[in-house]
Amino acid sequence: MKFTKMHGLGNDFVVFDLPADVDPGLVRAVCDRHFGIGADGVLTVGAVAGTVTMGYWNADGSPAEMCGNGLRCVARRAVDLGLAQPGKFLVDTPVGPRRVRVGEDVRVDLGAPMVGDMTRMDGWFFRTVDVGNPHAVTEVDDVDAVAVAEVGLQVQAMFSEGVNVEFVRFDGDHLEMRVFERGVGETLACGSGIVAAAAVARRNGAGDEIVVEMAGGIARVEFEGGSAWLIGPAVTVFEGVWPAQ
Amino acid sequence: MKFTKMHGLGNDFVVFDLPADVDPGLVRAVCDRHFGIGADGVLTVGAVAGTVTMGYWNADGSPAEMCGNGLRCVARRAVDLGLAQPGKFLVDTPVGPRRVRVGEDVRVDLGAPMVGDMTRMDGWFFRTVDVGNPHAVTEVDDVDAVAVAEVGLQVQAMFSEGVNVEFVRFDGDHLEMRVFERGVGETLACGSGIVAAAAVARRNGAGDEIVVEMAGGIARVEFEGGSAWLIGPAVTVFEGVWPAQ
Repeated sequence: MKFTKMHGLGNDFVVFDLPADVDPGLVRAVCDRHFGIGADGVLTVGAVAGTVTMGYWNADGSPAEMCGNGLRCVARRAVDLGLAQPGKFLVDTPVGPRRVRVGEDVRVDLGAPMVGDMTRMDGWFFRTVDVGNPHAVTEVDDVDAVAVAEVGLQVQAMFSEGVNVEFVRFDGDHLEMRVFERGVGETLACGSGIVAAAAVARRNGAGDEIVVEMAGGIARVEFEGGSAWLIGPAVTVFEGVWPAQ
Repeated sequence: MKFTKMHGLGNDFVVFDLPADVDPGLVRAVCDRHFGIGADGVLTVGAVAGTVTMGYWNADGSPAEMCGNGLRCVARRAVDLGLAQPGKFLVDTPVGPRRVRVGEDVRVDLGAPMVGDMTRMDGWFFRTVDVGNPHAVTEVDDVDAVAVAEVGLQVQAMFSEGVNVEFVRFDGDHLEMRVFERGVGETLACGSGIVAAAAVARRNGAGDEIVVEMAGGIARVEFEGGSAWLIGPAVTVFEGVWPAQ
């Protein structure tokens, strides 16, 4: 099978150019970082009746509902394949059609995040944010000083369904952030977490354009007509054939 | 650049088919598991005046002296490329020529390991073993129960130059093992560590053929005329072009 390896802000994916489902066992084999190709997940991209389609599976083989950085990679790949023209188009994802715009950066519409009230639990202050998946955004003075794994597990334990935990240093429209992803641990970036943190910044008085800095790179979030657009690079790293001939 | 991704017992490598040096910056970029191809190191394979050559760099870009599993991958690749015939041949490595034999498995001659006396330090009993690089082999009842990272750091701290630490359950000719590699942490397998553990087993009365089980797979060590042969699979996982066209 031919594949393309891509990343969006360090979230990395094996991309197959086909509008079909992928076997969970194949996903696990492909995503293994020592015995396979190595990735956070597998994406498929195709076109059905003129509409670009996206499939997504986590590295453990489970189907995932949405992945903002994965959607950005699918949009880029669709343009590279000639399935869509640069500019705005729709991608049919596992949770319905999503708007994307491909230029030098790739922007995707992740809908309207719902920001909850400030909450105090076990000495931690945070706001819950629903971006299709659950987030808890907490403010810190120094992101480098946070014991992300330890505190992330503590905060997760307060939620029966688990939660993604964002540790954010707020400075007006400029955020620094680390994230603890539900069931994964600390990651280089998390698309929905970036939107969650930006939504809290906006609630705190920031403008409609927020810059979020993470270990995986710099993203922007733009709020426009009730939607939060996640904006950043989507990069093709290499192409290959698996397994070897 | 065309490349091949290979692994030997889960030690994984990006292999370039060229008999030349590689820039440390390129090695670091290629080995990054999210932004590059992802590997423990880079190997080069070529032929100079009819002899197969091997180059090896760690993921951090530093040149490495020897890597048993890397040598096994180079031997396999040399045969796949037609640079050598299956069977026995020599590979010119950074530490001089080494004998290899390529069949269904790949075996490489790692020389004569030097086993030291039983040593007690800070409550730990171990034997030092020199396989070109330094090892400390310690016996445990249950490899799964060992806090490898914690104890590995403790034992390393007793050696001014650092040391690779093997935690081994000895059962005659059959060993189970976990390893803490100097400057890396726990790894799926370590070629010289496998030989070090087998050498201690032999000193304890085992025969000339030892089986070593690790998370990365099963290796064998055969002692023959003063040499320890490391034997196991060397697998080509996929082929690719980096960066993407």
